[in-house]
Amino acid sequence: MAAARATLPLPRLPVHPSPRSHLKPFPSLSARRSSAAAGVAASLRLGDVIEAQQFDRGALTEIFEVAREMDALERGTTCRGAGRSRVLEGYLMATLFYEPSTRTRLSFEAAMRRLGGEVLTTENAREFSSAAKGETLEDTIRTVEGYSDIIVLRHFESGAARRAAATADIPVINAGDGPGQHPTQALLDVYTIEREIGTLDGIKLGLVGDLANGRTVRSLAYLIAKYQNIKIYFVSPDVVKMKRIDLYEAARGKYIVDKKVLDVLPKHAVIMHPLPRLDEITVDVDSDPRAAYFRQAKNGLYIRMALLKLLLVGR
Amino acid sequence: MAAARATLPLPRLPVHPSPRSHLKPFPSLSARRSSAAAGVAASLRLGDVIEAQQFDRGALTEIFEVAREMDALERGTTCRGAGRSRVLEGYLMATLFYEPSTRTRLSFEAAMRRLGGEVLTTENAREFSSAAKGETLEDTIRTVEGYSDIIVLRHFESGAARRAAATADIPVINAGDGPGQHPTQALLDVYTIEREIGTLDGIKLGLVGDLANGRTVRSLAYLIAKYQNIKIYFVSPDVVKMKRIDLYEAARGKYIVDKKVLDVLPKHAVIMHPLPRLDEITVDVDSDPRAAYFRQAKNGLYIRMALLKLLLVGR
Amino acid sequence: MAAARATLPLPRLPVHPSPRSHLKPFPSLSARRSSAAAGVAASLRLGDVIEAQQFDRGALTEIFEVAREMDALERGTTCRGAGRSRVLEGYLMATLFYEPSTRTRLSFEAAMRRLGGEVLTTENAREFSSAAKGETLEDTIRTVEGYSDIIVLRHFESGAARRAAATADIPVINAGDGPGQHPTQALLDVYTIEREIGTLDGIKLGLVGDLANGRTVRSLAYLIAKYQNIKIYFVSPDVVKMKRIDLYEAARGKYIVDKKVLDVLPKHAVIMHPLPRLDEITVDVDSDPRAAYFRQAKNGLYIRMALLKLLLVGR
Repeated sequence: MAAARATLPLPRLPVHPSPRSHLKPFPSLSARRSSAAAGVAASLRLGDVIEAQQFDRGALTEIFEVAREMDALERGTTCRGAGRSRVLEGYLMATLFYEPSTRTRLSFEAAMRRLGGEVLTTENAREFSSAAKGETLEDTIRTVEGYSDIIVLRHFESGAARRAAATADIPVINAGDGPGQHPTQALLDVYTIEREIGTLDGIKLGLVGDLANGRTVRSLAYLIAKYQNIKIYFVSPDVVKMKRIDLYEAARGKYIVDKKVLDVLPKHAVIMHPLPRLDEITVDVDSDPRAAYFRQAKNGLYIRMALLKLLLVGR
Repeated sequence: MAAARATLPLPRLPVHPSPRSHLKPFPSLSARRSSAAAGVAASLRLGDVIEAQQFDRGALTEIFEVAREMDALERGTTCRGAGRSRVLEGYLMATLFYEPSTRTRLSFEAAMRRLGGEVLTTENAREFSSAAKGETLEDTIRTVEGYSDIIVLRHFESGAARRAAATADIPVINAGDGPGQHPTQALLDVYTIEREIGTLDGIKLGLVGDLANGRTVRSLAYLIAKYQNIKIYFVSPDVVKMKRIDLYEAARGKYIVDKKVLDVLPKHAVIMHPLPRLDEITVDVDSDPRAAYFRQAKNGLYIRMALLKLLLVGR
Repeated sequence: MAAARATLPLPRLPVHPSPRSHLKPFPSLSARRSSAAAGVAASLRLGDVIEAQQFDRGALTEIFEVAREMDALERGTTCRGAGRSRVLEGYLMATLFYEPSTRTRLSFEAAMRRLGGEVLTTENAREFSSAAKGETLEDTIRTVEGYSDIIVLRHFESGAARRAAATADIPVINAGDGPGQHPTQALLDVYTIEREIGTLDGIKLGLVGDLANGRTVRSLAYLIAKYQNIKIYFVSPDVVKMKRIDLYEAARGKYIVDKKVLDVLPKHAVIMHPLPRLDEITVDVDSDPRAAYFRQAKNGLYIRMALLKLLLVGR
């Protein structure tokens, strides 16, 4: 595979989460109390999760620590039965999906349930307006925030999550808005690298495939660039180098990870994929210990549990 | 705006909720016990919520008192976390929607959850029959009542809620059936007027828009007429005065509430809308304290919490 | 009605559930502990519920005993309120439906909720792949098992449940896969006969209707054949005797159970139907005490509660 470097698009926003005049501080009173009491530094005061660029290295470290706690909690027997977590008991999450994404939705809902919380859900949020024309996103948010404590929004338009966060008095998590952002995916990708490799500094990352269309790839590259001595190799067919669109079908099948690739891959290396995979990774790769994509999907649960906890009740 | 009086259609049923031979008394044993023990008068023995006409003034007063308690409960910190309400813990509500209405569904589901209850849900109840022809509503009710403690029904046919209530041995709430009735909307509308104005007697109410098609308007007019010294102004374009249909598009845009209207509106006045609003109220009206429509949507949660509690466990 | 005997297709698998190299033993540690501690015989070690043929008579007896306990539990007042069952508290069931079946889905969800458990749900599981081609069932299972403790699968392809069970490390229940199997329906049918008649040995069973297409009929015949002195009468129009397909419409209306049939039916007899019924049983039959179909639907709740308990925590 030829290695090629693409030019990273400039970030649209400042990278430090605070002060964030455009996003809200901790909304819940109990969280502010507990932060003050514990003397917690303002390095991570989550109000919303909108885009990968809002997290600095300190914020990532804290989120990953909480995700690690969630991993231990969920694997232990105390997660089921009488000893289960009640951290978010009584809290209500509204999954507001303007386009379906069952994988993402079930991941968020499982995360909320594992912490004792409750869920209101629709994958058909466009239906919110009974008339054909449709009410604005802002009006829907102002109604739904009356029924819930946190909103997880999936939308087909870029920027929808920011609009929702600006309108809502409760936290909003971006579950993907248009071709733009899918921050929880980026977080779980970086967390997975850390868990699999053991570190984030000094790694070499190969990003393979449809780089023009991959919002996954862009967000991951942003986050990983906060670490030191990173080498990123962008590997794609010419037709879909960053910025070209709608040529996925032409590009498919050009780069496949199969047993021959495994043979030349270093022992410590890791193979990741946001799923669903079609034919980019052959099934006989799955049993190799370096195949991490299903552990990666599981990490999505832990990252989302961590974010829900941090947003609603704090650390 | 020209004021015009329409002739109200005669109510189809007697207005006193008891004795209601056509609707059932309190179904649950615990509720009957607690009523008897507390010497509660039979002024409100809710078995089902089918139509606005079933409530007399005493019933409305009681429902509004419970809704006020729910308001206080939901706003207080005890609604989340360990101190949350468990009034309906272990109870199961089936939202059975034959046509989608995400707004109404989420409102009911949030109401049930805030009281510690659980939800079974479908917005695709037509699917209940695997064959193309479809089983009767009655058969579906007889099956679903085996799985739940209360049914919230949304249907496209007028009278469906009454049929469901006649069939079911558990309470049924009409979440809207055809062009006919949407009683919980009417209740939350009247409750909102009381909360915003402070009283219901002696008020002046302007009903603006598509009066022929608005079941919301009809039910609201019925309920408000139970109070004293009410003046109702019906304001609509000629094309859609009560009884003409399918001319909404011709009527749209004829009466808009905007800043110019605000300027001539009295200080104590209130602007309400069942939502979704399209262009009938301009967005710059939202920040005026008299704009009550989002508080109105929130009141829907409290009214539904009150009804669920009254129907399942009593006061 | 003419009685006709059809030739039963040979079972595809051995009928003893253990040892079942193709299906898994009890997955949960607590269940294995409790079995070992109680010295429970291995007659029923449920790992998955895939097909009617996996149950021998001893397994059926045990499942029916637990279903009887669930019946008592659900009818008693302790099922609601503070005394409710928490047997499956903290456990998460994923209803993964690749085709809609609201009746079956709500039955499973109510079962889980009545035992204190939680539910993740989709009736649109085909959507799991964002690309048009679609990820494999195996990949979806490997992702969803990370979010849940038990999967209830409904699929359009015969054999899908077996593939899911072979992939998953958590229990899988077949909620119907293609024209092949619907084991929980078969179990609730046999349980219903036992509850209604009082015994299973020595009964005479009439199977009426579309026998070629009825997977319900096939599975029921398999299970009932494990009992002694059974007589089965297969009654169908010539066009749809076992093995002919797609002629339901031609066959409809040929055999109807109505009041005239009631008049010649013995006092102890029972009329059953998997529902939905269209015109095969006239509505005036419903009030006859021998009409058991709605009690049958209710038994589905108890059977599913029993299976969930046995699969997750054991007896």
